[in-house]
Amino acid sequence: MSTTPSLTPSRLPNRSSQEATLIADILDEALFVTVAYVADGRPMQLPTAHVRVGDRLYLHGSVKSHFIQQLADGREACISASLMDGLVLARSAMHHSINYRSVVAFGGGQLVEESTKKDEVLHLFTEKLLPGRWADIRPPSPGELTATAVIEFPLTHASAKVRNGPPSDALADRSLPVWGGIVPLTTHQGVPVPDEHNQVPLPAYLTSAFVS
Amino acid sequence: MSTTPSLTPSRLPNRSSQEATLIADILDEALFVTVAYVADGRPMQLPTAHVRVGDRLYLHGSVKSHFIQQLADGREACISASLMDGLVLARSAMHHSINYRSVVAFGGGQLVEESTKKDEVLHLFTEKLLPGRWADIRPPSPGELTATAVIEFPLTHASAKVRNGPPSDALADRSLPVWGGIVPLTTHQGVPVPDEHNQVPLPAYLTSAFVS
Repeated sequence: MSTTPSLTPSRLPNRSSQEATLIADILDEALFVTVAYVADGRPMQLPTAHVRVGDRLYLHGSVKSHFIQQLADGREACISASLMDGLVLARSAMHHSINYRSVVAFGGGQLVEESTKKDEVLHLFTEKLLPGRWADIRPPSPGELTATAVIEFPLTHASAKVRNGPPSDALADRSLPVWGGIVPLTTHQGVPVPDEHNQVPLPAYLTSAFVS
Repeated sequence: MSTTPSLTPSRLPNRSSQEATLIADILDEALFVTVAYVADGRPMQLPTAHVRVGDRLYLHGSVKSHFIQQLADGREACISASLMDGLVLARSAMHHSINYRSVVAFGGGQLVEESTKKDEVLHLFTEKLLPGRWADIRPPSPGELTATAVIEFPLTHASAKVRNGPPSDALADRSLPVWGGIVPLTTHQGVPVPDEHNQVPLPAYLTSAFVS
């Protein structure tokens, strides 16, 4: 068993990049990551929100969460983020594909114990979802901070994979009478829906975010 | 080590359901799953397209893919699908959340060897992405079928988790002068972009799919 996981995919190396900026951009755009780890010799994974700060990735959750407790012991995790950019419609079934950007990172987590740093990371979590939101809301109380665990992972062993561009039809298939190209995919934020307790108008940071 | 993974989350049981229809609906709506497994004692995971048929889930890939080769030996996989439905904006930092629907399934894969069944599964893969597409395209040749591996997983050990509805603000926070509610999230298919070889008009199954 090697001590560092291989970051070189065994196939399609042209889709790979270890470029730090690309990895950071994908993680920053992704709304969530999936976190895989080994528990009692078996694979386990869960989706969860995240925030990247420099070459560190942070997850958070209740200190009572079994998931958090398992990751807090420093066991190796495999964390991935995936963005789907388009359906790739080739003339042959074989070359249908998806345009995507994904990151896979390996590393052991470490609890963030210091409450000022925890507060700062939670601030960044909220600002990642909606810039401007943190200044508007009630910040965590000392008790809420204590009840929240924040785990830091290094991004030192991370790689990105990207597929983009048109379909890769075989030469002989290009003249088939079949529509070929891309169907773009995007995630839209819709018109915000107030809850029943709401008594304030939509703040500017929310009106600018959505597509009606 | 137990012989079947626990499907009961350790916390938030109100978000859980083992209802087969919910699990099927989430898997059918998801564009991809992430597949986690253990390789040499370490966690590994990859995103990949999938299709559900009854209580079976199918993945596919090149027979040369390391990922496919590892899963084909029947080792246990943990497969998850996640749909993000909305940002949950509470008055306190603590109760910010995401509305989501997710599935986690555990099981060992098995190669589909029979070429008629492989062809049928690939048909369903394509129709899941874009109903109507299969009848339009060149089907897999015998050589392409041989080069493509299809792996079947049981969905007998699967569970769903769902968070929906408004923020869960504490009573004391509800009167804070902070906008509270949901920002809906949706995935949009955009206007199809033909590639440079295209010579045919947009087929009806594509014009009906996109939001301009």
